[in-house]
Amino acid sequence: MTRIRLGMVGGGKGAFIGAVHRYASRLDDRYELVAGALSSTPEKARESGLELGLAEDRIYDSFEAMAEAEASRDDGIEAVAIVTPNHMHAPAAKAFLSRGIHVICDKPLTATLEEARELTRVAEEAKALFVLTHNYTGYPLMRHARQMVKDGKLGTIRVVQVEYAQDWLTEDADPDNKQADWRTDPARSGAGGSTGDIGTHAYNLACFVTGLELESLAADLQSFVPGRRVDDNGHVLLRFKGGARGMLWCSQVAPGNENRLTLRVYGDKGGLSWGQENPNVMEFTPFGEPTRILTRNGASGATDGVRIPGGHPEGYLEGFANIYSAAADAIEAARRGARSDALFPTVQDGLAGVVFVDACVRSSAADAAWMTV
Amino acid sequence: MTRIRLGMVGGGKGAFIGAVHRYASRLDDRYELVAGALSSTPEKARESGLELGLAEDRIYDSFEAMAEAEASRDDGIEAVAIVTPNHMHAPAAKAFLSRGIHVICDKPLTATLEEARELTRVAEEAKALFVLTHNYTGYPLMRHARQMVKDGKLGTIRVVQVEYAQDWLTEDADPDNKQADWRTDPARSGAGGSTGDIGTHAYNLACFVTGLELESLAADLQSFVPGRRVDDNGHVLLRFKGGARGMLWCSQVAPGNENRLTLRVYGDKGGLSWGQENPNVMEFTPFGEPTRILTRNGASGATDGVRIPGGHPEGYLEGFANIYSAAADAIEAARRGARSDALFPTVQDGLAGVVFVDACVRSSAADAAWMTV
Amino acid sequence: MTRIRLGMVGGGKGAFIGAVHRYASRLDDRYELVAGALSSTPEKARESGLELGLAEDRIYDSFEAMAEAEASRDDGIEAVAIVTPNHMHAPAAKAFLSRGIHVICDKPLTATLEEARELTRVAEEAKALFVLTHNYTGYPLMRHARQMVKDGKLGTIRVVQVEYAQDWLTEDADPDNKQADWRTDPARSGAGGSTGDIGTHAYNLACFVTGLELESLAADLQSFVPGRRVDDNGHVLLRFKGGARGMLWCSQVAPGNENRLTLRVYGDKGGLSWGQENPNVMEFTPFGEPTRILTRNGASGATDGVRIPGGHPEGYLEGFANIYSAAADAIEAARRGARSDALFPTVQDGLAGVVFVDACVRSSAADAAWMTV
Amino acid sequence: MTRIRLGMVGGGKGAFIGAVHRYASRLDDRYELVAGALSSTPEKARESGLELGLAEDRIYDSFEAMAEAEASRDDGIEAVAIVTPNHMHAPAAKAFLSRGIHVICDKPLTATLEEARELTRVAEEAKALFVLTHNYTGYPLMRHARQMVKDGKLGTIRVVQVEYAQDWLTEDADPDNKQADWRTDPARSGAGGSTGDIGTHAYNLACFVTGLELESLAADLQSFVPGRRVDDNGHVLLRFKGGARGMLWCSQVAPGNENRLTLRVYGDKGGLSWGQENPNVMEFTPFGEPTRILTRNGASGATDGVRIPGGHPEGYLEGFANIYSAAADAIEAARRGARSDALFPTVQDGLAGVVFVDACVRSSAADAAWMTV
Repeated sequence: MTRIRLGMVGGGKGAFIGAVHRYASRLDDRYELVAGALSSTPEKARESGLELGLAEDRIYDSFEAMAEAEASRDDGIEAVAIVTPNHMHAPAAKAFLSRGIHVICDKPLTATLEEARELTRVAEEAKALFVLTHNYTGYPLMRHARQMVKDGKLGTIRVVQVEYAQDWLTEDADPDNKQADWRTDPARSGAGGSTGDIGTHAYNLACFVTGLELESLAADLQSFVPGRRVDDNGHVLLRFKGGARGMLWCSQVAPGNENRLTLRVYGDKGGLSWGQENPNVMEFTPFGEPTRILTRNGASGATDGVRIPGGHPEGYLEGFANIYSAAADAIEAARRGARSDALFPTVQDGLAGVVFVDACVRSSAADAAWMTV
Repeated sequence: MTRIRLGMVGGGKGAFIGAVHRYASRLDDRYELVAGALSSTPEKARESGLELGLAEDRIYDSFEAMAEAEASRDDGIEAVAIVTPNHMHAPAAKAFLSRGIHVICDKPLTATLEEARELTRVAEEAKALFVLTHNYTGYPLMRHARQMVKDGKLGTIRVVQVEYAQDWLTEDADPDNKQADWRTDPARSGAGGSTGDIGTHAYNLACFVTGLELESLAADLQSFVPGRRVDDNGHVLLRFKGGARGMLWCSQVAPGNENRLTLRVYGDKGGLSWGQENPNVMEFTPFGEPTRILTRNGASGATDGVRIPGGHPEGYLEGFANIYSAAADAIEAARRGARSDALFPTVQDGLAGVVFVDACVRSSAADAAWMTV
Repeated sequence: MTRIRLGMVGGGKGAFIGAVHRYASRLDDRYELVAGALSSTPEKARESGLELGLAEDRIYDSFEAMAEAEASRDDGIEAVAIVTPNHMHAPAAKAFLSRGIHVICDKPLTATLEEARELTRVAEEAKALFVLTHNYTGYPLMRHARQMVKDGKLGTIRVVQVEYAQDWLTEDADPDNKQADWRTDPARSGAGGSTGDIGTHAYNLACFVTGLELESLAADLQSFVPGRRVDDNGHVLLRFKGGARGMLWCSQVAPGNENRLTLRVYGDKGGLSWGQENPNVMEFTPFGEPTRILTRNGASGATDGVRIPGGHPEGYLEGFANIYSAAADAIEAARRGARSDALFPTVQDGLAGVVFVDACVRSSAADAAWMTV
Repeated sequence: MTRIRLGMVGGGKGAFIGAVHRYASRLDDRYELVAGALSSTPEKARESGLELGLAEDRIYDSFEAMAEAEASRDDGIEAVAIVTPNHMHAPAAKAFLSRGIHVICDKPLTATLEEARELTRVAEEAKALFVLTHNYTGYPLMRHARQMVKDGKLGTIRVVQVEYAQDWLTEDADPDNKQADWRTDPARSGAGGSTGDIGTHAYNLACFVTGLELESLAADLQSFVPGRRVDDNGHVLLRFKGGARGMLWCSQVAPGNENRLTLRVYGDKGGLSWGQENPNVMEFTPFGEPTRILTRNGASGATDGVRIPGGHPEGYLEGFANIYSAAADAIEAARRGARSDALFPTVQDGLAGVVFVDACVRSSAADAAWMTV
């Protein structure tokens, strides 16, 4: 199968998530990066493109230029990865979707709910695909957990405990830290800080695994670091349709936590516990029996999305690559005019994430009043 | 030093916590159990007393009879352990306090807030001591954590995450399970189920370690098991005076959790994480440095309340015994007409616990409205 | 049941293991310490005895005096705990055994093989009982492991990996450290250093759990600290009767290890893994299935020797107390002229330990030649 | 920089390690697979090649044909990955080296010591590079550990404990399992079974981190599964030059161990502990201080070979890719006629591994006699 011709918007030198998308696209050898609008600074865009081996004429200064030029080439890109700060997701995505170019977009979907709704409308009307990289759903054990829930191994879900804790914003960020700069700027990141950056991942993962739909939430958000304009810590009570309840904690000011996303789910027949920092194991307790340690591609049967045998750890990039490979399945099907049932986060998941952030921010402003979502 | 003469109310055959109190009183050899009103069933009281080696004339059918008889003996008990269901704590405690007999009482303080206030008044006016067995404060690493917070090792506390999860009430309890029977009966346990039984421990421990005072809370409580009359799961948002925030989760329906009390505390200079099921280690991260594994009586300097060298695990009974030994310090000081500065949970801690439960129940009834405590 | 009247030889102020024996004897309330020859320094013996509440006339300057005096009292001790340095075990034990007083002796049995053989002969001919405190066999999960092996859960045992690592002798010991002083003095501890002090525990535990008998060993022992007269690190290859093989590592110079005794056992049907520093959990893998986390008194069914529910950790003292309680069962049976089937380490286990140390030392001197035991 | 043109010998459909090499070569985008002799069965070679997108004329039936044809093309391969069973390593490697094509070869170097010596001679005389994929040296924390040892953080090394345990050969292998088939066939794998397949990894890693050189060893090897022709479990005593000692355990019959390579190193100033199954953390204890948890790309400063921030786990493929990228550095330098100081395992490391296996087998045959290496 010919590799999918991929472009990238954002992800120039020094960016974190752009490099991640490139690793992820490369791992299973189904994409070839051939074009980029890697930076809004022309010189940096050019340097970054050359460094990545792009042809000079396919290094662009803007996503608009790239969308137009690539759409008119016979060998133009089939898909684009959007890895800019959040406020650029919607305009960039629309530019490509409207030209029939598939979009693989980083999360959260947009910086505002208004944009999210508009983009959702556009994406659903477009012929091109829209894939959102809620990458944690790509971990094999999270897929296995989802299947276990579907298979009734946990019984009726009662309680969901999900956390995403980091510590990198414990102090006022270094002004030279570009990540910190835009992620704490509401104009670029959106009204949610930790809620938008990591809370959305936690929320998405909890729903992915449990299959539950949120009914309402009550949020108490804080900005502990003086002068910070967005939340850096959030405590959220969750009520799901059907009666399950949950708690969600997201924090960027919790020293000792690098990237500690954890999910625990409890039903009337069993419980599950998993943590992202060691993603190759998950604990499962059938009520009344000893806890089992389920391993990725081990005796547990968790084989969906694995590449190598159990005991040979796979990590963040491999999970991320599973989203890219699911997207590749769908894109290859689209080449043939077919549809695939590949599993990846959609624009609806993205909209749900922005609705979540919006509800958190409104609830917190209303003293943690319940907000229906 | 002569052993302290101890009586016991409750704790007959088959009881859990009565036996724990006896182990705890014995470990450091500072008490001698000499009298008991071990059951409200006379025959069972007698059998239990004989089994424990009590003299026949010091086995009583009721705490009232015991209080009166022991108070009039020259060799009467100096202290009494109260280990009955919650609704009996107040009447029993008052009977002994009023006769100058020190009280060591299990938690929660009482079944109702009214009783708690009344007992607090009585205890504060009494000459005898009142000790509440919030035993988890007896763990050496929790004492060390408290000292670390005091010493500023964590800086200003921002976030408290405390959980107490069990699974033993995941299903409708066996009617022959006496523990389950009274602990899910609001007349005997009080209006809080999991909140009263274990949430109070979690709340107490969080305050003990951080030194914070709660300002208000918002609680969403559930009774997942059909027919259950008290909460079996609770999600609580915490706001402490001075700006720190927290989350508290208590559950008795979380399969895979035996007695998983965990505490995590984050300040602007560092974070701490500890779990009761392996209480001999605690993680401490000074912000920006690698996490340290602090061990009980190891290189960490956590020596308060230890008996044996690091690497030789101490457990639940040893932590519980530390409360008894602190009480013994205070009782021995009282013998000499002196005061000790021994550290143990007081009637005020007990009152705070009942206030907490009451606020949780009222908040939950008001759709998780904030309640000031 | 009347408490067993207990004496103690050794264990004066500042001693480690004497205090442990007292805690252990007290926990289940079946012994009362009534006499002691707690130190070979009369003044210290007296001070220590008074501190422990012994009557003045039952504080002795020597074990000989104590044996004689107690044997002639109507209320004389029924059992004695011997907690001296190793070279005193044999003479003290013989003095009491010969007078019909039961002996509970710390390990290793003796400082020399000659003494061990002689003491074994005496003990086997005596009417009194001899109990050796290989306390790690008292842990409930080690008893459960033993039962699992017996029940065939692991199939035929092939491989045993046992380790006991500490770090307290990493540097030349402080001359004021009495523990270090005698434990590194071959005249008092015996020819084995780490092998005798902790290697014997590891060896005993491995045999206890697996039921295997050692056939031969090859040992490479080291004294890493300059000037040290006994081994402080030992590497031992094990060949068991029937074909199982093993490795044993003991070390007192391994920084980061406080008291890390671990045992792993592998058969053709499954494997087990346990570590003493968190003794309340054990991993069990039936071949081809996910690993189970078995907990003490949890869903695993490991109930032998437990006092409190799963999730409420028990530790070193509780395990040690199980040896004392087994001894109490046997002593109470002896009072009635009966025999008990209580499980505790015997003089034969002690002899096996000294044989093990002797073989290690001889093997190492012969360049790790195989020694049949 | 133009991608390095890569060929592959072995690694057809269904092979494990061939796929791993392809992932590893692709991750950092520095290689392009353009030719292959992927199977000794022509039809399978062809199918596998087409599946991988190779041009038809660069799919070969034999490594000889490939070496000859590629060496004569202007756009011929610059490097070849050799991922066949062990007995084919030497002939294939020599064919390419002699034509100036760089070799990246899986371990162990060869099936026999004779071949290893011959290949070493050839490789050292060749102009082309020889890289051996002892991939575990590619883990960032293993590189960090090596640097810590060099920096004296552990002081003088005394004790090395290294283990590599698996369970996949616990039972007689399924005859359809190609991996098991050749790996237990001495003609193809060499005289060592577990020692050759995984013991060499353990040995290599221990030397890589500590910088120690082995002086002699004593090995007790077993073939527990009836009919097995090579060892499936090995116990090895190690004596290093300079006085350090060690133990090495390798096993393929230890149920519950998927791919459990662990390394612990103890010096007079500190200790290190690391396990491959969760390779992103390592424990470090400076003697007398609390243990530190060092994380990959976290506060520990372990940045060599990392791609993404701490807390975002990297795994087996990323470590493996670090070997490929170091090779790429060296190959790119060679293009310019320069030399690089890139760190990767060499033919000498490979020779040392085969010497190790040979010594283990001879020692075990001589009843674990010491063999100088």
